[in-house]
Amino acid sequence: MPNWFERELFAGLAKVVEDDSWLSDEANKLAINTAVNSTRNRPHPWSTFADADYPNWRGLSDRTFLARHLPPSYPDPANPLPDPAKVAALFARPAAGGTKSNKSTCLFPAFAQYLTDGFIRTNPTNPRKNTSNHEIDMCPLYGRTPKQTDALRLPAAAGGPKGRLKSQMIGDEEYPPFLYNPDGSLTDPAFNVLDPPLFAFNQPIKKPTDPPPPPPATMGGKPFAPARYTSLFAVGGDRVNSSPFTAMMNTLWLREHNRVAKELEQRNPGFDDERVFQTARNIIIPMFIKIVVEDYINHITPIPFKIKADPSVVWDATWNRPNWMTAEFSLLYRWHALMPDQIEWTGGAIPLGDFTLDNRALLAVGLDGAITLAASQATNQLGAMNTSAALLPIEGLSISQARTNNLAPYNAYRVAFGMAPATAFDQISSSQEIQDKLRGIYDTPDRVEFYPGLFAEDRVPDSPLPQLLMTMVAVDAFSQALTNPLLSQHVWKDNPTLTFTDWGFNEIGNTSSLSDVLIRQGRPGGSPPVTMTLPGWSYTRTP
Amino acid sequence: MPNWFERELFAGLAKVVEDDSWLSDEANKLAINTAVNSTRNRPHPWSTFADADYPNWRGLSDRTFLARHLPPSYPDPANPLPDPAKVAALFARPAAGGTKSNKSTCLFPAFAQYLTDGFIRTNPTNPRKNTSNHEIDMCPLYGRTPKQTDALRLPAAAGGPKGRLKSQMIGDEEYPPFLYNPDGSLTDPAFNVLDPPLFAFNQPIKKPTDPPPPPPATMGGKPFAPARYTSLFAVGGDRVNSSPFTAMMNTLWLREHNRVAKELEQRNPGFDDERVFQTARNIIIPMFIKIVVEDYINHITPIPFKIKADPSVVWDATWNRPNWMTAEFSLLYRWHALMPDQIEWTGGAIPLGDFTLDNRALLAVGLDGAITLAASQATNQLGAMNTSAALLPIEGLSISQARTNNLAPYNAYRVAFGMAPATAFDQISSSQEIQDKLRGIYDTPDRVEFYPGLFAEDRVPDSPLPQLLMTMVAVDAFSQALTNPLLSQHVWKDNPTLTFTDWGFNEIGNTSSLSDVLIRQGRPGGSPPVTMTLPGWSYTRTP
Repeated sequence: MPNWFERELFAGLAKVVEDDSWLSDEANKLAINTAVNSTRNRPHPWSTFADADYPNWRGLSDRTFLARHLPPSYPDPANPLPDPAKVAALFARPAAGGTKSNKSTCLFPAFAQYLTDGFIRTNPTNPRKNTSNHEIDMCPLYGRTPKQTDALRLPAAAGGPKGRLKSQMIGDEEYPPFLYNPDGSLTDPAFNVLDPPLFAFNQPIKKPTDPPPPPPATMGGKPFAPARYTSLFAVGGDRVNSSPFTAMMNTLWLREHNRVAKELEQRNPGFDDERVFQTARNIIIPMFIKIVVEDYINHITPIPFKIKADPSVVWDATWNRPNWMTAEFSLLYRWHALMPDQIEWTGGAIPLGDFTLDNRALLAVGLDGAITLAASQATNQLGAMNTSAALLPIEGLSISQARTNNLAPYNAYRVAFGMAPATAFDQISSSQEIQDKLRGIYDTPDRVEFYPGLFAEDRVPDSPLPQLLMTMVAVDAFSQALTNPLLSQHVWKDNPTLTFTDWGFNEIGNTSSLSDVLIRQGRPGGSPPVTMTLPGWSYTRTP
Repeated sequence: MPNWFERELFAGLAKVVEDDSWLSDEANKLAINTAVNSTRNRPHPWSTFADADYPNWRGLSDRTFLARHLPPSYPDPANPLPDPAKVAALFARPAAGGTKSNKSTCLFPAFAQYLTDGFIRTNPTNPRKNTSNHEIDMCPLYGRTPKQTDALRLPAAAGGPKGRLKSQMIGDEEYPPFLYNPDGSLTDPAFNVLDPPLFAFNQPIKKPTDPPPPPPATMGGKPFAPARYTSLFAVGGDRVNSSPFTAMMNTLWLREHNRVAKELEQRNPGFDDERVFQTARNIIIPMFIKIVVEDYINHITPIPFKIKADPSVVWDATWNRPNWMTAEFSLLYRWHALMPDQIEWTGGAIPLGDFTLDNRALLAVGLDGAITLAASQATNQLGAMNTSAALLPIEGLSISQARTNNLAPYNAYRVAFGMAPATAFDQISSSQEIQDKLRGIYDTPDRVEFYPGLFAEDRVPDSPLPQLLMTMVAVDAFSQALTNPLLSQHVWKDNPTLTFTDWGFNEIGNTSSLSDVLIRQGRPGGSPPVTMTLPGWSYTRTP
């Protein structure tokens, strides 16, 4: 267990929690501060600019480069790093099948991917750079730029609905508009400003500023038929169409935006289209952040007390510093091992390799059906030897990306985040097989690279994540989510009515889980609950 | 006197100062914190985006708009604001001559303009927007963008000097290269990426992304001759050529960069061109910030104790938040009244209207000569009824800009910065003439606009600035200068050798005034001192 957690929190917090196992305000603040303070705060002195090992103005000011927790570490030419293919093999799931998680449903990776695709945005043409806004701004829904937002908004019309995002009704179900006509052209010339969908494995990588290209002829070695590509959505994020799960998350938030906009329009006759739109977005972003902390982070943490998304925690925190995605954060969130080899679906299981760039599975069962399916099947366990063959090539790319950015070795990150360096392989993993594989790749624990080391570790008891990964996720989750300007003191505390309306502020307060959003959208009573945690799971450790 | 100053500081600090009248570290921290905490911290909830009076995502995230201390305030159509020309007349200096400052030399406005031109950068085509990097990054010297920096750098050549900025020698004097050939073409095609010099009164306003246009045919109603425009420099800032004083400041820092680069090259044979350049810039920026606080701010403050630029003050401050220039800050720094009607110069006084876009005066006397001239003549006093006719049109533009951005009235800003609202005109100015003029323009003190109100006030005793203006300058000076990433904890405290080299760190420590820089560049001993404060001036109030 990480030092910060076991020593500071578990014992101490048990004394101060309230009856319903929500933490008191002070305990909540302590828990969040302790998590973030496991390492130094921003601004980071180093970045990927020129890969310089000395701080410099461009690296300290240009956020199109990635910040870094540790300075670059250059390989020793006399002792080269192992072949990336050999390292990638450490991640391969055995043909006999992977290990299932005992805690998480597929709603967990669905949310994690949708969340992180919004701000972990490695530039596809240059892995030293990024296209991130460095904020939780719901850009998968709204677009990354004002021009993209305009293309996704329903134009204001006299007497028409106000502040809405473009959408289509298919039966009773509201979805984003489709992106492609059957001939491969765009359904709406306005969509020319959207980011190209990520077809990275199928055709030359496009620059982020290129318009969406026509769909490629093949996908995963099979013809990419019009029936498939016409199911892709016109959305803000280039990765929203990457699986029916991410398309499902975006559909949930599209509906929530339009529901909130409709309510705002009815409750505020004086609001024009612009104000309805802006106020709806003002409400959607904090709703999402509340779910990040109170649904997602609480699923991740191994403590049996619920952390609250209390904006006041950060107002005087010394870690309230401008967000800046790091090279390490861009890699540690590659949670491909979570995905099963096949996804259970109405009408039969879908092989993982077919569960991409094809929203027909979502359209067939509808939003509620898809979320229910995600929430009723277990993920695989996150860790080594558990990545599906369909995603294994991405592990190889991740290993190469870490080397391109000259990341420091795994042990250096253990030290930077308050852990002792590993001096033996059994201090990394309790699995003899993983220890043997690590030994076969690296001579000593000091040679283990950052990316494989992160995933080779055992899971923290009662958490779906390994130890160092969990610590690093907690630091960046709290220190970059709660610094959102909509949660800042002079917005959240001083001007809630003006920013959200009283109704909207209350609606944010009433949002704590994805289930809350789905129920508000009209989920029938008595439906099975949709949660990131498997039904029946419980903490093995209690205070 | 502002409340924050008189109540909190003057009496208290007297007890804790050290012998040499530098403040102790704790007293220094108290002084800076008290100044900044006179108003709320960033992030500001409002911006000039869409002039919305409600916070919204674009306004909270897009720094090409200006932040605002107070929300927009819309004029009452039933009670329109007075004609801008009538308001501008309040600023007009009497034909008989203006009032001279008893504290400041012309080195004060020369530095103030060069400083603020680096970050107060209203977009010339849209006064709601800006082209600022929101940092003290010495962009007048280095350019606003990486491409501009590249155009200004001397390309690396085998065996050639490392890390230098392009320059030319004229006799023994080093200057930036000239921008224009006699035929109006650029001297170097690389300069095509530089911002166009600000010829705003003479030809259509250019977008910041347009290349430098050919010089206009006339300037101020006179032919703009090749002999004049060929004296303009190729520099990072579009306002550097606006007067020989700003061109002089840029020349000082060009020489300092190249001096520091030469020293670094000699002391660090292993450094390549890139590292010499980046390290020199790493040193120049904090040197400049030290002068901002220890020379410039100390000239402004009325306290007889020297404030120190101690980076540690900000590391745990709740006002350490991302910089963001405000609509108010963009206006309050229009200190045109400081400029005399004519500038005393070797060979005869130069009318102010001719002291622009013409560097021949600087070239004639050299850098030391020009700084000495600036430091040996008094400015005019900052305030109403003291702007030279040559600059009066700009006052009209400032009044209009404040209205375009719907700034709140003067009294609202008094309240926001801890002062009581003015209920009678004699609470704004002790001058009967200014009171009468204000009464003639505005019926009541509540109707007084921000911009004229700021300048109508009396100067604070022992300060060159009026009261509200001084408070607002102090807030933004400290809270945006000391947050510079080169002064951040993990750069300044944890990695000084890597960032600056030990020699460079020491060189920063040895820099406290413009005079220090000039002497390092070889100023002859026994020369008269160059200071922003007039010789013989002394505080009227002592502890």
